[in-house]
Amino acid sequence: MADLRIGMIGYGFMGRAHTNAFKRVPNFFPGLKHTPVLQAACGRSEDNVKQFAAQWGYASVETDWRKLVERDDIDAVDICVPNKMHKDIALAAAQNGKMIFCEKPLAMDPAEGEEMVAAVEKAGVANTVWYNYRRVPAVTLAKDIIDSGRLGRIYHYRSNFLQDWCISPDVPQGGPATWRLEVETAGSGVTGDLLAHCIDTAIWLNGSIANLSAMTETFVKERVHVDSGQAQPVGIDDACSFMCRFANGSLGLFESTRYACGHKALFTFEINGENASIRWDLEDLHRLEYFDHEDAGPLRGWRSIHVTDHGGDHPYMDKYWVPGLQIGYEHSFLHQAADFFEALEKNQPCHPTFRDALETQQVCDAILKSAESTSWTNIQ
Amino acid sequence: MADLRIGMIGYGFMGRAHTNAFKRVPNFFPGLKHTPVLQAACGRSEDNVKQFAAQWGYASVETDWRKLVERDDIDAVDICVPNKMHKDIALAAAQNGKMIFCEKPLAMDPAEGEEMVAAVEKAGVANTVWYNYRRVPAVTLAKDIIDSGRLGRIYHYRSNFLQDWCISPDVPQGGPATWRLEVETAGSGVTGDLLAHCIDTAIWLNGSIANLSAMTETFVKERVHVDSGQAQPVGIDDACSFMCRFANGSLGLFESTRYACGHKALFTFEINGENASIRWDLEDLHRLEYFDHEDAGPLRGWRSIHVTDHGGDHPYMDKYWVPGLQIGYEHSFLHQAADFFEALEKNQPCHPTFRDALETQQVCDAILKSAESTSWTNIQ
Amino acid sequence: MADLRIGMIGYGFMGRAHTNAFKRVPNFFPGLKHTPVLQAACGRSEDNVKQFAAQWGYASVETDWRKLVERDDIDAVDICVPNKMHKDIALAAAQNGKMIFCEKPLAMDPAEGEEMVAAVEKAGVANTVWYNYRRVPAVTLAKDIIDSGRLGRIYHYRSNFLQDWCISPDVPQGGPATWRLEVETAGSGVTGDLLAHCIDTAIWLNGSIANLSAMTETFVKERVHVDSGQAQPVGIDDACSFMCRFANGSLGLFESTRYACGHKALFTFEINGENASIRWDLEDLHRLEYFDHEDAGPLRGWRSIHVTDHGGDHPYMDKYWVPGLQIGYEHSFLHQAADFFEALEKNQPCHPTFRDALETQQVCDAILKSAESTSWTNIQ
Amino acid sequence: MADLRIGMIGYGFMGRAHTNAFKRVPNFFPGLKHTPVLQAACGRSEDNVKQFAAQWGYASVETDWRKLVERDDIDAVDICVPNKMHKDIALAAAQNGKMIFCEKPLAMDPAEGEEMVAAVEKAGVANTVWYNYRRVPAVTLAKDIIDSGRLGRIYHYRSNFLQDWCISPDVPQGGPATWRLEVETAGSGVTGDLLAHCIDTAIWLNGSIANLSAMTETFVKERVHVDSGQAQPVGIDDACSFMCRFANGSLGLFESTRYACGHKALFTFEINGENASIRWDLEDLHRLEYFDHEDAGPLRGWRSIHVTDHGGDHPYMDKYWVPGLQIGYEHSFLHQAADFFEALEKNQPCHPTFRDALETQQVCDAILKSAESTSWTNIQ
Repeated sequence: MADLRIGMIGYGFMGRAHTNAFKRVPNFFPGLKHTPVLQAACGRSEDNVKQFAAQWGYASVETDWRKLVERDDIDAVDICVPNKMHKDIALAAAQNGKMIFCEKPLAMDPAEGEEMVAAVEKAGVANTVWYNYRRVPAVTLAKDIIDSGRLGRIYHYRSNFLQDWCISPDVPQGGPATWRLEVETAGSGVTGDLLAHCIDTAIWLNGSIANLSAMTETFVKERVHVDSGQAQPVGIDDACSFMCRFANGSLGLFESTRYACGHKALFTFEINGENASIRWDLEDLHRLEYFDHEDAGPLRGWRSIHVTDHGGDHPYMDKYWVPGLQIGYEHSFLHQAADFFEALEKNQPCHPTFRDALETQQVCDAILKSAESTSWTNIQ
Repeated sequence: MADLRIGMIGYGFMGRAHTNAFKRVPNFFPGLKHTPVLQAACGRSEDNVKQFAAQWGYASVETDWRKLVERDDIDAVDICVPNKMHKDIALAAAQNGKMIFCEKPLAMDPAEGEEMVAAVEKAGVANTVWYNYRRVPAVTLAKDIIDSGRLGRIYHYRSNFLQDWCISPDVPQGGPATWRLEVETAGSGVTGDLLAHCIDTAIWLNGSIANLSAMTETFVKERVHVDSGQAQPVGIDDACSFMCRFANGSLGLFESTRYACGHKALFTFEINGENASIRWDLEDLHRLEYFDHEDAGPLRGWRSIHVTDHGGDHPYMDKYWVPGLQIGYEHSFLHQAADFFEALEKNQPCHPTFRDALETQQVCDAILKSAESTSWTNIQ
Repeated sequence: MADLRIGMIGYGFMGRAHTNAFKRVPNFFPGLKHTPVLQAACGRSEDNVKQFAAQWGYASVETDWRKLVERDDIDAVDICVPNKMHKDIALAAAQNGKMIFCEKPLAMDPAEGEEMVAAVEKAGVANTVWYNYRRVPAVTLAKDIIDSGRLGRIYHYRSNFLQDWCISPDVPQGGPATWRLEVETAGSGVTGDLLAHCIDTAIWLNGSIANLSAMTETFVKERVHVDSGQAQPVGIDDACSFMCRFANGSLGLFESTRYACGHKALFTFEINGENASIRWDLEDLHRLEYFDHEDAGPLRGWRSIHVTDHGGDHPYMDKYWVPGLQIGYEHSFLHQAADFFEALEKNQPCHPTFRDALETQQVCDAILKSAESTSWTNIQ
Repeated sequence: MADLRIGMIGYGFMGRAHTNAFKRVPNFFPGLKHTPVLQAACGRSEDNVKQFAAQWGYASVETDWRKLVERDDIDAVDICVPNKMHKDIALAAAQNGKMIFCEKPLAMDPAEGEEMVAAVEKAGVANTVWYNYRRVPAVTLAKDIIDSGRLGRIYHYRSNFLQDWCISPDVPQGGPATWRLEVETAGSGVTGDLLAHCIDTAIWLNGSIANLSAMTETFVKERVHVDSGQAQPVGIDDACSFMCRFANGSLGLFESTRYACGHKALFTFEINGENASIRWDLEDLHRLEYFDHEDAGPLRGWRSIHVTDHGGDHPYMDKYWVPGLQIGYEHSFLHQAADFFEALEKNQPCHPTFRDALETQQVCDAILKSAESTSWTNIQ
């Protein structure tokens, strides 16, 4: 058993989610050889980071990430700060030989992403990006079914991620709570924040996207900035849709928005093959819908698979409770952490790596360019 | 092609539903040898029955059912009047050699039912009782699955019929619209009106009920009577539940009420066998839920079968539209009428016959007796 | 009461659906002043059309539609033949002063459509196109809610129509059963057949579409032609998606295919406003999903409205049964026929008129052009 | 901040669930004054308990529970062993002044339960029984709605708990994994194991049960005993249903079984009041269904409330993630632990206490007696 000392940079929503994952891995995945140790938490506000460290049990705090990434007692860095800081931290961490966990999206744009990939690959450090939804058991099960070949030729892939928290024009931009609405900090709006999840899952399940045509919109043109207290133009995309063709010949359709009244986190995907179809929905993440054309004709129907069976039947579920009992959103991070440690033992990459996430970044970039140019755009 | 001249007694909700069925059979079931002809409609109010006859195309009217059942130009009588009149009409119709369609429940009590069974059997006239839900395609499909043996040994059967239209104490009793709340006319409340459907389906799908323990309640003790304008005691059961054992050893649980806020016609059943389970719900009558334990483990789930496939795959559905398109409540009557005519061609009974419906009547009677005596009661 | 003598041209799926509607209107909508009379059915095969006429009760038959439209004893013509014949029949019918019911899509292309609109408007004959889904009660209810202003500013509209009957390459093209796969007869594939429904509903609910970007695909490149028995290139689109902007500033996303394994007729729409959202699905056509942000916070949720309440609460439902009991697909035609007769009484148009349907045709045309040119296209 | 040192007796499914809860309370409920400390784990097998202690971080182990309850460094005992051991441990723990967490059901029978209640009340030690489902946020929300008076007079309560893991006759009885099938160890079958949950929730939501009529069945009469390797009679109830009357005049209907193919943990309840209804289902535990008759007529429908809103809107959910993201089964234990600590601060009881759980035990006892005597039975 080897300690793996984590330095966590950022203590917001994602900082909490990742920390919770690290803490619980040894309880639910007892066979792993590495034990995460909460060595240091880092944030600009000393008071806040101390409170966070106390709540979650970090052994020390830092207020300067540069110091953190240089500490000898840190084995891995977890980047949970806004997108515009990912690159610099990742480069410094790689240079210091730290393993890196990075929140998604990888970077502000593909150019940054390429630098980051080059850095971790040159440094030879283990790296992964927290596209956590791959490890929701129902999504992993979808991947298993697809890999088994049950679906046959794929015709269609559709996915969306719908929220509604930006409908009010009173929501501001900037600051710790709403930096996602500030283009200088987030890079893009729903494209990098939400569609990036849809795209990562799509590429994983259905392969690369060849080309696409996109449309974006900013419904609320100005929002008060938290820092200035003044109304300022909104630079991010409030909504984004795109059509695409995958390399395997199937058609894709994607949409994301923060203006879909009634949807808080409706991340869905559906894939239609010649023999079978699959669909999934984050708001009922423990279920997978499956239709198999080979079922006897009169008894064919969409199956609602409650992905809670233990004993090896359903991905990850042998670690938990008894059949019928759900786990939640947070467990997807736990699974990614556990898989990272297992990959480390086997000296294998833990997907999605920075390189995998770069492809998603390139699709996001193509989306924004296509929307701006109102034309079809090839990836790369 | 032979005309089969119908005399319809009653022109309320059921009179309309049956008439609609008779009119449409030749369009949707063109291969049948008998053509129903709307020969006469009968009702006490001459104005009302004339209006009904005009709207639906009856060739003549009567205001006295005794005259109707004696007319030579009537081949079949359809009894759509309140329960307390079923017996007298059925006996007279049988005596006159008429075929008989009778609304459910068969009678006010088993004694009446036995007289009616004896009368039709002695007269040798074709007879059927409108337990129409057997012919909802999804329910018929359930029967087919059960008959195929897929379920194996049966452990459980549960069914309910929930409505909410009696919550207001301002709903009166008696009269054409609310005779179901008057015990002298209806015989019982939810037991004969709603549970009778549950029981007919249950016996059809799962065999006879051996014994039971029941509970009834009348929540609103007095209601204004339509005739007197005065508050009078309510004699019917507002709600009724019972537990039972079927002859095949399985356990049953049934409930009905008119006080379940939010449910208009929630007639459901579920049957659990050792290998598979089935459930159904009238409020989505075109779907059948099916779970098969033999499906591959990780892909097991309740299937939602959209019972709309044509080409012989789903019962009755080859008569209608294209896959995916629903039919409605009214078609169940159409199917029973068509099956009646087909049975006639083959000189076979059309189930449920009066004799079949007598068994349901006996169960209803046992329910009321059990509730009154607060003890387990054997059927017969 | 005035007879309105119908001449039905075509006796396939739609011929049956329309005929059924005409026959039932007097029973369920007894207050109308016009009574449809099934005067003549017309089809090229004399045997087939005679059989159809016998089954449904047409008084006479024709094998040449030109004769039918010239008959003095015909008041209205119903065009239920493949798309390529719509224009000629409509022009002749208008010239002969007949009212016209026309199956959708209106025409093969906008040029034909414009001729048809000009013809009926010049002749001053009542006209309507069977975009029947507007009259599914749940869809009409959606319209009522939107018209009430409950939704506020609209942000998003999405709709699809998914089927799976073309996955097998053994499905042929041409002939009475599969003319929809032959481009010379159908004009287009899923665009005119399925998306046209989505578009008609969208324009009705959300106003005109300003511009769009589309993508089409033909997955199976060759299919045997029924006439020749030889494999021939497939000219129609198997699948089509498009993004659009509505005139009201909202974003639209549409998709249709016949290759979505597990979906038979999954026509859905969803509309997101600033205060409320609505969604609907043809496979459960009796339900409307509704989310209202003004509901008390902790009790907010998508409501599943069972659109079966009578007494004027739900559109059209006062004509049928009791609360909780579904009607089906076929009733949408019944409602359009009844509304046509009512409009006639009031000397008003029955929407969608030919002119309304022309707009949908223009959108379809823009879709095909956009897909071919891979560029954004304005409507008109 | 005060340490509260826990001694955990038992390390099976429940031992893990409770331990997980204690570990996480300080992370998610940081404001509490007590910090649970995993002081000792106790089990008969030294190897097993050491492995458990290592996996979860217990500071020490014991193999004799009598030693554990006497240790000075233990503040609270958690009883997670089979039912037959609850009483002796609880009595000893109370005598030693320990606070007690006890797995449900409280005891083997009411007599034992009364002794236990007397012991904790005499000793004045804080006590609670792990009827954890009260603290699923959706269930707590149901309680809040009911307490607000929204439902008005209650007419009906129905609940079931359906599983299917005992269908195979090859499932043995006795031993650590299947002691629930051995009557000497479990006291009863589904009644104490599953119905007890239904009853605890029912009493909490709807008040006391006055009287009942029950039915039990043992479908598989003999099972191999793990210890002897021999087939032995099965003494527990495989299935149990009962009807009841609540003290508030409403009617209840309950069912539980382990023979409902397709259901792993289908714990549901529904409550119908004169103004509104509520229903819930453990297999989608993050949703609450709610119907409010006061919603505008045409827009009435069952609401599916996704109980994941933060900011104080939904019980407990402000402690977790962002709206739309589910928590799971395990969190219900976390909430009960946090509530226990909060009650401790306030010197209040944490419900359900031993006394609360005794009432459930009395209902279970009445069920078994009613089933045996086939008669209605009063509670107490």
